[in-house]
Amino acid sequence: MSEIAAAGRTAGIPAAPPVGTALGVVAGAGRPGPARIAAPVGDAVLDVGALAAAAGGPHPALLQQRSLDGLLAAGRPAWREVFGWLSEQLSDPERISAHLLPASGVVPVLPFTVADYVDFFACEQHAVNAGRIFRPDGEPLAPNWKHLPVGYHGRAGTVVVSGTPVIRPSGQRGPGDAGPCRSLDVEAEVGYVLGGASEAPGHPVPLDGALDHVFGVVLLNDWSARDIQAWETRPLGPLLGKSFATSISAWVTPLDELAAAWVDPPPRDPQPLPYLLGPTDRGLDLTMEIRLNGELISTPPAADLYWTPAQLVAHLTSNGAPLRPGDLLGSGTVSGARREQRGCFLELSWGGREPVLLADGSSRTYLLDGDEVTITATAPARGGGRLSLGEVRGKILPAL
Amino acid sequence: MSEIAAAGRTAGIPAAPPVGTALGVVAGAGRPGPARIAAPVGDAVLDVGALAAAAGGPHPALLQQRSLDGLLAAGRPAWREVFGWLSEQLSDPERISAHLLPASGVVPVLPFTVADYVDFFACEQHAVNAGRIFRPDGEPLAPNWKHLPVGYHGRAGTVVVSGTPVIRPSGQRGPGDAGPCRSLDVEAEVGYVLGGASEAPGHPVPLDGALDHVFGVVLLNDWSARDIQAWETRPLGPLLGKSFATSISAWVTPLDELAAAWVDPPPRDPQPLPYLLGPTDRGLDLTMEIRLNGELISTPPAADLYWTPAQLVAHLTSNGAPLRPGDLLGSGTVSGARREQRGCFLELSWGGREPVLLADGSSRTYLLDGDEVTITATAPARGGGRLSLGEVRGKILPAL
Repeated sequence: MSEIAAAGRTAGIPAAPPVGTALGVVAGAGRPGPARIAAPVGDAVLDVGALAAAAGGPHPALLQQRSLDGLLAAGRPAWREVFGWLSEQLSDPERISAHLLPASGVVPVLPFTVADYVDFFACEQHAVNAGRIFRPDGEPLAPNWKHLPVGYHGRAGTVVVSGTPVIRPSGQRGPGDAGPCRSLDVEAEVGYVLGGASEAPGHPVPLDGALDHVFGVVLLNDWSARDIQAWETRPLGPLLGKSFATSISAWVTPLDELAAAWVDPPPRDPQPLPYLLGPTDRGLDLTMEIRLNGELISTPPAADLYWTPAQLVAHLTSNGAPLRPGDLLGSGTVSGARREQRGCFLELSWGGREPVLLADGSSRTYLLDGDEVTITATAPARGGGRLSLGEVRGKILPAL
Repeated sequence: MSEIAAAGRTAGIPAAPPVGTALGVVAGAGRPGPARIAAPVGDAVLDVGALAAAAGGPHPALLQQRSLDGLLAAGRPAWREVFGWLSEQLSDPERISAHLLPASGVVPVLPFTVADYVDFFACEQHAVNAGRIFRPDGEPLAPNWKHLPVGYHGRAGTVVVSGTPVIRPSGQRGPGDAGPCRSLDVEAEVGYVLGGASEAPGHPVPLDGALDHVFGVVLLNDWSARDIQAWETRPLGPLLGKSFATSISAWVTPLDELAAAWVDPPPRDPQPLPYLLGPTDRGLDLTMEIRLNGELISTPPAADLYWTPAQLVAHLTSNGAPLRPGDLLGSGTVSGARREQRGCFLELSWGGREPVLLADGSSRTYLLDGDEVTITATAPARGGGRLSLGEVRGKILPAL
């Protein structure tokens, strides 16, 4: 981590840690020491590796690593053992008390090595809104949109953990024009963290086996420089408009923890090809909340995503490309039908033409230096009530 | 490596090893044993790590690793020491004879861990040809093309070493239509292998320092499924049409070895912005050769590339995105002005309308199962004559 990023990071775990068996990685705040796998427990974090070693937990060698990489590679049977055991431990405060670290003494670090990062465009409302904004006289959706999940590879090396400040990017904004981005945006997304053994090259992952490759879910903010993106994007898609930073939540919520959150996907017309259909083609009913400097500005509903996680995995491997543990898939911006459910400022301000009014009397079309954006989410919990998925947070620093 | 890939790989080093101080990584063919850093020497390979340990070479710990990863991270001063020493050793057959391995006993493996792979579109002739083929009535170049190097992130996890067979990908070819690719293509490219210390986030690499981040050059074949690509590509660019495989040569030729190959870039109109101009804005005069089943079909001239390696590095970091050791940049297809200099079948067959006639009386619009494509290149050598950059080779296996 750079000095700038380190200096700007806030110590302490996120304000909204998940409840359940989420996992992340923390390091000591302001003092040297190895990173360790941890689970959020109220205003503390549990040193999961130390507990596993002391209490005879499963896969202690994997849990004592400095990242989730080994666990991601181990596959679903190992994940089930670990989460079953961890769930038991968490239910008994006495068992874990010796291995709790005060939240104020740790900072989250990136919980796993991102292999390839693929960002999709899976929300119909977002795709339609973007199409209407950019091409008001044309068809909002490209002809392929309802046949396959459109997506592109993003930059794995600039995925950062929640709390890392984001320096306003500079770049070309048009012919002969370069400078700091004037339309810096967020994109509220669901991130799917992949793991398990890869199929051999040439062998697609079938839809019905796709969820065995999904370790869990993070919240993801795909920061976007709209002016840079608009100028560079033809014909090969976004590059520098996105590659400066992508933030993910510190805690990964395991898919098993979201068992009560599955919902039927939206109706599809036309029907997708058979490789994209099957019983695992279901969505996750996450209610997201976007806050700008603490003020709630939008509540995107992830249940509205047209393309589901199993479809993203099945499509991404349909050409025979193998997956790797640590692959990260973004859903694309989540936007609902109502204005207050839109997942980015491009839509909230309708391309900058309708500023978002804030409680303090100011307004925004896009982000200003100093703005802090926090995305949280909840989902139906297995035992009733709602489960928090933590938060992804980032503050904008001025261009250098 | 999958069983399929292993079974189909040809033992032995490539038929056209480079002369000079190229480095790669080899493993024992047909027997277990660790991979090791090696240099090609005629019909043998030199165990560079063993020689460094025995002869007191520089950075023996880096040279005894199983990949070039450590060396890539070490930066240009270390690269200079290693290549200076290696050059001396190679000039004296007696010094190296104890550490030569017969070529027939080894297979090349991927020489480094690919961090992020970015593929550019840096050749004007290729971009113009592609534009004319796809949009015969429109402007062949997008408005941004002469202002910035257009590019996109490819899939790092499917970069494979020369000799790895390529399974014909399947996928969506149009609405409701899926099956094996019918227009499987090559793209002959120059690959730039990056290393050295990253700048902090937010700090672009200036053009004049850009070449300090370029460890060396590989030959790269960006296999492309044209039908899959055409259907999926709007509006976010290519994904599955490219992500099934990208092949690179086994040997990385260090940039210092190419000191005599620098040439002035083509004239630019309009003049690019200042961050893309400076003394290091020069191209590499590589003459590439594409062979289909041994028959020479094209000789793309890399000196024609409009955007140079220093410009690609400067542009890619212009938004503040840091580089990582192991980042791989592809130039995009290299094509010259003449038909026999075009770097892909899309252009050679003009979109499938003008089949390429072969010596055996057959013809090709795109690749058939069983076809083997080999791309080689030479460059002016420092001591006069020409230097070989080895080869990148791949054979097409039928779709599964």
